[in-house]
Amino acid sequence: MKGFFDYFFVCVVLCLLVYRNPVEGGRLLSLSKPQPDNVAAFARWLVSQSSWGVLNTISSDLGGAPFGNVVSFSDGLPDHGHGIPYFYLTTLDPTASNALKDERSSFAISEYPVGTCGKIDPENPTCSKITLTGKLKVVDGNSSEAKFARISLFTKHPEMKDWPKDHNFQLFKLEIEDIFLINWFGGPKPLTVDQYLHAKLNRFSFAA
Amino acid sequence: MKGFFDYFFVCVVLCLLVYRNPVEGGRLLSLSKPQPDNVAAFARWLVSQSSWGVLNTISSDLGGAPFGNVVSFSDGLPDHGHGIPYFYLTTLDPTASNALKDERSSFAISEYPVGTCGKIDPENPTCSKITLTGKLKVVDGNSSEAKFARISLFTKHPEMKDWPKDHNFQLFKLEIEDIFLINWFGGPKPLTVDQYLHAKLNRFSFAA
Repeated sequence: MKGFFDYFFVCVVLCLLVYRNPVEGGRLLSLSKPQPDNVAAFARWLVSQSSWGVLNTISSDLGGAPFGNVVSFSDGLPDHGHGIPYFYLTTLDPTASNALKDERSSFAISEYPVGTCGKIDPENPTCSKITLTGKLKVVDGNSSEAKFARISLFTKHPEMKDWPKDHNFQLFKLEIEDIFLINWFGGPKPLTVDQYLHAKLNRFSFAA
Repeated sequence: MKGFFDYFFVCVVLCLLVYRNPVEGGRLLSLSKPQPDNVAAFARWLVSQSSWGVLNTISSDLGGAPFGNVVSFSDGLPDHGHGIPYFYLTTLDPTASNALKDERSSFAISEYPVGTCGKIDPENPTCSKITLTGKLKVVDGNSSEAKFARISLFTKHPEMKDWPKDHNFQLFKLEIEDIFLINWFGGPKPLTVDQYLHAKLNRFSFAA
């Protein structure tokens, strides 16, 4: 009889989770979407739930133009990100070679592909977007950080570990210096890098 | 009896279209995805099928960093784009104000949110991406180009026409100078701006 109650209890909890954290893009959002005024947690949620964005560097080949490039990234294991985006790039692609000449960079992510914007427009301020600006740096391949970056990337992007060895993919990270977050009306939310990196995350809490 | 045959004929044509142009993201892709080696048509298809991307400018406020920002855009009526991306921006947002100081810009789009990449990673070269680099310019609000831009934007993004008047949204366009397209293995595809703008589009043709 106890077995039945255990089963029933698990069922009820799962039903509640699914009810309050709708299945988006075929998966249960275990890290629930914070309220827009919970700024640091919201920013971390958006970065953690995303798997790709546009990484920008300065292109000396194109007259110093800002060059955006679609890339995959990871800030940690799913729902357990640390907030710092890691990338797996090759200098065969201009972004990595640009960064080796000029580290100034930004990384832009939209909530739209996460699937939680509903029918509103991607440019509507209630469909959130974040731009992390800073320096794009190579991660020392033998460091403990490289181990973390590799696990983070290869877990979210399993095919990466099979990408061609002769392309010399390297680990990069964005050292964040400024955060631009829009997640509601009224302009960008004030958010320091320190607040972002030390956000208190409310795992499994219920968004209203 | 003729009415029945008309009905039957239309049914068969629609079935064939749906079969060969799968419904992606809830809509029929009437402009079919070209083969990767049909470079100019492929680039135009990707731009035409997309509704948002990341627009990059130089931020003097952030030490000249390349600043990416998620924005909506349109290059024309659905499936009838001209290839030039138009934007509806306010100087309350840094991108427009950056561009008024320094026109150097790029616009990056991924095929991933179009829904035609299947299960491959967004950074896999067979999931296409394009970066258009050039100058971000204001469109004269009284010109015939502005009329085209307005119809193009408001048709793809109906809520735009109701955005706050006191935010002084303006029409912008990217004058393209360089094109970076990856849509298969082997690095970026050679593609001139002229080839891109005058691509022969294969409307309603069947992709293999």
